[in-house]
Amino acid sequence: MRSKFDMQLANLNKELIEMGALCEQVIALAAKSLAEGDIKTAKKIFPLDDEIDQKERDIESMCLKMLLQQQPVARDLRQISAALKMITDMERIGDQASDIAEIIGFMGERTDRKCGDIENMARAAIKMVTESVDAYVKQDVEIAKKVISHDDVVDDYFKKIKTELIEMISKNPDDGEYAIDLVMIAKYFERIGDHATNIAEWVEFSVTGIHKGVDEL
Amino acid sequence: MRSKFDMQLANLNKELIEMGALCEQVIALAAKSLAEGDIKTAKKIFPLDDEIDQKERDIESMCLKMLLQQQPVARDLRQISAALKMITDMERIGDQASDIAEIIGFMGERTDRKCGDIENMARAAIKMVTESVDAYVKQDVEIAKKVISHDDVVDDYFKKIKTELIEMISKNPDDGEYAIDLVMIAKYFERIGDHATNIAEWVEFSVTGIHKGVDEL
Repeated sequence: MRSKFDMQLANLNKELIEMGALCEQVIALAAKSLAEGDIKTAKKIFPLDDEIDQKERDIESMCLKMLLQQQPVARDLRQISAALKMITDMERIGDQASDIAEIIGFMGERTDRKCGDIENMARAAIKMVTESVDAYVKQDVEIAKKVISHDDVVDDYFKKIKTELIEMISKNPDDGEYAIDLVMIAKYFERIGDHATNIAEWVEFSVTGIHKGVDEL
Repeated sequence: MRSKFDMQLANLNKELIEMGALCEQVIALAAKSLAEGDIKTAKKIFPLDDEIDQKERDIESMCLKMLLQQQPVARDLRQISAALKMITDMERIGDQASDIAEIIGFMGERTDRKCGDIENMARAAIKMVTESVDAYVKQDVEIAKKVISHDDVVDDYFKKIKTELIEMISKNPDDGEYAIDLVMIAKYFERIGDHATNIAEWVEFSVTGIHKGVDEL
């Protein structure tokens, strides 16, 4: 028979997977609305971002309840603490997607001259988010490490896109405003990659007790 | 004799003023480090942002306690709900300042060719934040309205800066990367203005019961 803690943990994982799925959904919507120049698709992001915010609250109180009631130690404690930290990053991913949606709203429905690499970058970012949540659920350090190294791919896309857009502006300053909007969108996708990296680092901490970003843990 | 609710409210206001002061401080540090090309100043933002996050948690639990214990109605209830919403915006201001600090970290210590209007924009944003908190504490709709209309000033700065930087890139593509960094910083200051506007709108709601942004309230 499973202990109460195990049942609560299974429930927590279920909630985290759902929150992760919402994150993937908003990033995918951001990429789609950018590709199609479709403001209506972008607008779908806002209510989903609200759902993500609500999930953060729900999971947070779930974790606090587990900490207080069960007083877990060692790896169990780390797993709950990791979940508590991860949801902050997931919530930020929702914010970044909302920020992208807002910029798309201002850009209007133009899809010409868009930068194909942003779509590749978005795809890479979605993959990172999916796999970071997967790594948590499976408590798999190898998947977490893959996510962390994949961040370079996203960062390289960002550098490439920046260079392309600078060239676009220098060749045709009239496209400047459009190019600046695109570079800001790319910046938000890059930040999404950073958050997925954070999530993966918390998975490493959860399993190994060592956190790369923070020495004192 | 003051009621327990009044004392709790006074305490809440004290905390909100402190959180507001922290927000002003991080924006000012962001502006200063940008003006002086000083990464050390930028790094001071991160621990303050952590303090802002902690304040959000503290104030949040304070508000929930007041709602549960005192079951306030009408204007009292609105004031607590407004505080609960405002702190989300204040916390975001801390994030934006951190994002600016991160970009400054990547930019290195260059202060040449910088865009003077960003400093003016930062000053305008600080003013908005200070006054929005002031409006809450004084429950003064007139101050709140001033903040809301001041957002146009910040938005206009952003448009102007964008145009200037597009010109910089088109004239000298080698400065492109630097200009893009500056435009992203300006974007974050513009978002700070948006958050101050949100705070001011919650003050209006607190006093009048009407919220511009949300119909169903």
